[in-house]
Amino acid sequence: MNVAIVGVTGYSGTVLWRLLNQHPNIQRVNIYTQQSDLTAVSKQFNWVSDQSINVFKFDIADIMTNNDAVFFATPAGVTGGYAAELMNNDFPVIDLSGDLRLKDPAQYKKWYHQEPNVSHETLSKVTYGLTEFTAATATYIANPGCYATATLMGLAPLVQERLIDLNSVIVDAKSGVTGSGKKLSRATHFVDVDENFAMYKVNQHQHIPEIMQQLREWAPDMGPIQFATGLLPIKRGLMATIYAKISDEVSDVDDVIASAFRATYMDKPFVKIMDNQIPDLRLIAGSNFTAIGWSYNPVTRVVTVVSVIDNLMKGAAGQAVQNFNKYFGLSETAGLTQLPDFV
Amino acid sequence: MNVAIVGVTGYSGTVLWRLLNQHPNIQRVNIYTQQSDLTAVSKQFNWVSDQSINVFKFDIADIMTNNDAVFFATPAGVTGGYAAELMNNDFPVIDLSGDLRLKDPAQYKKWYHQEPNVSHETLSKVTYGLTEFTAATATYIANPGCYATATLMGLAPLVQERLIDLNSVIVDAKSGVTGSGKKLSRATHFVDVDENFAMYKVNQHQHIPEIMQQLREWAPDMGPIQFATGLLPIKRGLMATIYAKISDEVSDVDDVIASAFRATYMDKPFVKIMDNQIPDLRLIAGSNFTAIGWSYNPVTRVVTVVSVIDNLMKGAAGQAVQNFNKYFGLSETAGLTQLPDFV
Amino acid sequence: MNVAIVGVTGYSGTVLWRLLNQHPNIQRVNIYTQQSDLTAVSKQFNWVSDQSINVFKFDIADIMTNNDAVFFATPAGVTGGYAAELMNNDFPVIDLSGDLRLKDPAQYKKWYHQEPNVSHETLSKVTYGLTEFTAATATYIANPGCYATATLMGLAPLVQERLIDLNSVIVDAKSGVTGSGKKLSRATHFVDVDENFAMYKVNQHQHIPEIMQQLREWAPDMGPIQFATGLLPIKRGLMATIYAKISDEVSDVDDVIASAFRATYMDKPFVKIMDNQIPDLRLIAGSNFTAIGWSYNPVTRVVTVVSVIDNLMKGAAGQAVQNFNKYFGLSETAGLTQLPDFV
Amino acid sequence: MNVAIVGVTGYSGTVLWRLLNQHPNIQRVNIYTQQSDLTAVSKQFNWVSDQSINVFKFDIADIMTNNDAVFFATPAGVTGGYAAELMNNDFPVIDLSGDLRLKDPAQYKKWYHQEPNVSHETLSKVTYGLTEFTAATATYIANPGCYATATLMGLAPLVQERLIDLNSVIVDAKSGVTGSGKKLSRATHFVDVDENFAMYKVNQHQHIPEIMQQLREWAPDMGPIQFATGLLPIKRGLMATIYAKISDEVSDVDDVIASAFRATYMDKPFVKIMDNQIPDLRLIAGSNFTAIGWSYNPVTRVVTVVSVIDNLMKGAAGQAVQNFNKYFGLSETAGLTQLPDFV
Repeated sequence: MNVAIVGVTGYSGTVLWRLLNQHPNIQRVNIYTQQSDLTAVSKQFNWVSDQSINVFKFDIADIMTNNDAVFFATPAGVTGGYAAELMNNDFPVIDLSGDLRLKDPAQYKKWYHQEPNVSHETLSKVTYGLTEFTAATATYIANPGCYATATLMGLAPLVQERLIDLNSVIVDAKSGVTGSGKKLSRATHFVDVDENFAMYKVNQHQHIPEIMQQLREWAPDMGPIQFATGLLPIKRGLMATIYAKISDEVSDVDDVIASAFRATYMDKPFVKIMDNQIPDLRLIAGSNFTAIGWSYNPVTRVVTVVSVIDNLMKGAAGQAVQNFNKYFGLSETAGLTQLPDFV
Repeated sequence: MNVAIVGVTGYSGTVLWRLLNQHPNIQRVNIYTQQSDLTAVSKQFNWVSDQSINVFKFDIADIMTNNDAVFFATPAGVTGGYAAELMNNDFPVIDLSGDLRLKDPAQYKKWYHQEPNVSHETLSKVTYGLTEFTAATATYIANPGCYATATLMGLAPLVQERLIDLNSVIVDAKSGVTGSGKKLSRATHFVDVDENFAMYKVNQHQHIPEIMQQLREWAPDMGPIQFATGLLPIKRGLMATIYAKISDEVSDVDDVIASAFRATYMDKPFVKIMDNQIPDLRLIAGSNFTAIGWSYNPVTRVVTVVSVIDNLMKGAAGQAVQNFNKYFGLSETAGLTQLPDFV
Repeated sequence: MNVAIVGVTGYSGTVLWRLLNQHPNIQRVNIYTQQSDLTAVSKQFNWVSDQSINVFKFDIADIMTNNDAVFFATPAGVTGGYAAELMNNDFPVIDLSGDLRLKDPAQYKKWYHQEPNVSHETLSKVTYGLTEFTAATATYIANPGCYATATLMGLAPLVQERLIDLNSVIVDAKSGVTGSGKKLSRATHFVDVDENFAMYKVNQHQHIPEIMQQLREWAPDMGPIQFATGLLPIKRGLMATIYAKISDEVSDVDDVIASAFRATYMDKPFVKIMDNQIPDLRLIAGSNFTAIGWSYNPVTRVVTVVSVIDNLMKGAAGQAVQNFNKYFGLSETAGLTQLPDFV
Repeated sequence: MNVAIVGVTGYSGTVLWRLLNQHPNIQRVNIYTQQSDLTAVSKQFNWVSDQSINVFKFDIADIMTNNDAVFFATPAGVTGGYAAELMNNDFPVIDLSGDLRLKDPAQYKKWYHQEPNVSHETLSKVTYGLTEFTAATATYIANPGCYATATLMGLAPLVQERLIDLNSVIVDAKSGVTGSGKKLSRATHFVDVDENFAMYKVNQHQHIPEIMQQLREWAPDMGPIQFATGLLPIKRGLMATIYAKISDEVSDVDDVIASAFRATYMDKPFVKIMDNQIPDLRLIAGSNFTAIGWSYNPVTRVVTVVSVIDNLMKGAAGQAVQNFNKYFGLSETAGLTQLPDFV
């Protein structure tokens, strides 16, 4: 198969390009760019790689003609303009941007602070590709956000099986700096990040609505969640620490929680359930794994669930490849065999 | 005045020694040690300092004879053996260890995993020195733990004025590695900490009982709190992120919270109230300041309070000096004028 | 005394402002700025400081009327325009920028890549303020660059006493990121610095000519030096590792080197001579100290001298205060008593 | 093929185990250990890997019977005891330890501070496996040290073609903390490494004699080198910065250097020659690449060569696999296709 990438210069795009080049079922990766200087884009990749770098001017028709699928790792506001055309041609898309994740354009406007450019109808045809929870998918797959992935995976069994008070969820999430993108900013200047920890976008992160949308599919009466995000002085890795009150009617809580997590993630090759052990970021950084552990406190009846991912892998490029694998009926782990860097 | 330090080789002791040497009301700082090699202790300090280093063999009578007060920065299990004697002599003590913070010896045994060696009666005579909340103090002052300081300061107005559901408190706290002490361990080896974030002692941290003890003094019907701690890949700084549900009867929540914090910390020279702005660690690292900000979410009625301190200053040595200043009726800021390192 | 600062928003300016505020001989620090929004400048400082922040519109006459001295912590290209006027009025200036360090305008053009705007005559009246080596100074003091300070202090006894082959000097210097200034750049983005070490400006750093100028004052036949700089993934601290061949005629090399360093820096309160021990950055970071150690290899006859400073203290603001103290005949350590942060 | 690893718990061993498991020509990796608790060793690896973990009690006969080759990633002092037996059986060995690198046991004693336990004769049969420079190899391969690899690769063309004064070489090398091994020590405690840079073992590093031994094979009249090592506050990556005077007889220096490097490393799949561009650590960290750049200064006639590797890959486990590939006539890049982590 040949695949196209649009938006290869950001962190997610770079990791994605690397994964696709090593993918056993992919013959050729074509880079499409709206930048005029194709050589500059090519140069970003060729410094130590002998793999051929194929860079073309962005052209939606060309993409569909010469490829079997396209990955978009573009900023907010780009994919909306092409979604309908791609759908009409039944052309497989994995969209890493947030543009088509929310079914309700009003939510998009509220959380992304820009006008939506996709219709209700187009949005309704999109699959939200949280891979462990999607079966057959549409041709257009919205790859979930990094915070959404870790949070939803940590909450899924608890919400689906109503083990918790649906109005009690509090998420304290933290991410490495690649999660903030490659653009220069005061908040990501070395001197401002190093030896610091800073919270940002408390209750305002744009991944909140996609989390709520998915939770409400699982439990329509799901209450609002409390959601905070923090910036760790590291490059890669994301932890969602989730607090929730266990429902009064649940007894044998430890066993019930363990069974729920084990049943939900049975046979999922990228999920490691750690029971009463709290995973740290090193355990998964560099890999496509999600590790989930928890601690139940019988005194407060609060369960603390910790869900960790690599924000660029399971939180972006890795899950995109996993979505690709599922769509084309390949082995779910194809091209994703890399173990964590952990020594 | 002359003051004694016991336990100067740890992180808190080192910072304390430095602060006391710069203190305008202190003439001489005497180091007492149970190590046999006094020169080795002296050598730790003399490399760039021209200040005279006075090291003596530990001797409780000698301490009382030649000093006006003693600071203990010793590990758990040391001060208990000397507390009664020091009290009987009305000798002023600032004890940075956790040995005399808990009024109930059974709690000490449960959380410190060792036998208490202090009687109920002795414990009853100790002042828990959370400086912003103590008036006249006893001669024996138990300097609060770092997590306890940040958490209690962030919760005080909310609990004292019952603005929150007393059964809803969840604390997600994080600290730099100096908080784990100077002893070598796998968990504090550079390779294990760098580029990582790890939670530890979830619901098991030994500062939990002193937090509960103080909260119940403020509100006897205070419910248990949920308390997690994490290790940041930095040296210094501690953040307590506190989540609590605002009581149903409270209206004008934003104003009420702001008024409560402002009233509580009015005229407190080391507390900065930031209202709807979340402080980060850089803001206070290196100084004795506590900075507190919050964000109220009307959808969930949860308030997120963020309280940050330098774990070695306000969380240990700085507050110890503040306790000393208060006890002797000095200016509260004497010897503590250092601004944050922040550039 | 009242003093003025121009250029307070950069890293050096911020540290300088803090030092001057704590200075026992300074009553009032006035900030002058060319930015139109004075409140914005004020806001940078008032968040945890109760010290009054005095911000004025930049006006050279106003500065001279209301202050006893002025510190410039401005970028290259600013001070040249005001130097002559300030000199004509005998007004004391400590200039942290590189504009008046080089006596030869052609050198300035070559290394700073911009047209010099100061005359030969004006330049000739400037004192190059390497404090340990200046006696009576002119009113206009050019505060040395950070790399120049560490390198010159490490080389001084060896060159002055001609203990080394004057054509054999190689300097491998490294600095923390604050040395690169506050401006955002790809090279100082957290993701690019963290877990990396990068050399830059090999043989092209603008501090090379001021080093050569000073070395040639000490030894007119001094040969060119090899000079490389690297960016460490830390905030503060600078190490100059200096390699030089010991002259053939020198015997008892270890003793001769030790004597030379000890004699040169005898009675210098901010210099710590460590003999055969190599100082690391922690030893001095946060303080105004320079620590110097060395290792002589009899097999190669090469001496490795390591000279470490805090780039914002002895490398900028600290030495500026030291220059101020010397000019006004104050104690050299006034306002500079801060010990290293080292725990 | 089946391969054995002895010493899998250290950093090099862990990375090696991972590489061998992904190696296309290896069917099974057997771990041999002298620890009694085999399960503990197994547990280190099975947490996120579904790959089978085969752990056996260390037994040299068993190793030779059930494997096609053995890798030793053991501390100094282990392999010497087995080398002769393995050689007598013509059993292929890749030895990552330093025990058999030096031909002269007296040198071993001097630099490793322990008695050599290998005879001159046994040592004479060992191939020093600097892969880019070895042709047919013996069965026993001594895998070079990390500092030796980077330094020798940066010096090879200059020494082999005598482009430099053979008595002028100065190496200023720096490494990440994994280079110091997994054992806890004060020097590798997080608080001591973070925000610091420390030189260590100046002129005393045990890789110096293997560098000299190899350089003297290339140029018997090679003079001693000056060699310093420093500890960077990062996990992985090593830079050797090499200074040397270009010989007086060389003209067209830039061209001559470039030609020499290009000719030496032509067709070497893991070497990237960057000419007048200085590589940083990010460029190669995580991969088996060596990147080499330089800058020639016509004023001093000194060339600065910078050679960077990942200390655990090309500096240890990666080169070990490369040696394995070469020995068995496999593609040199088999199992080593991983690109740098760089984003």
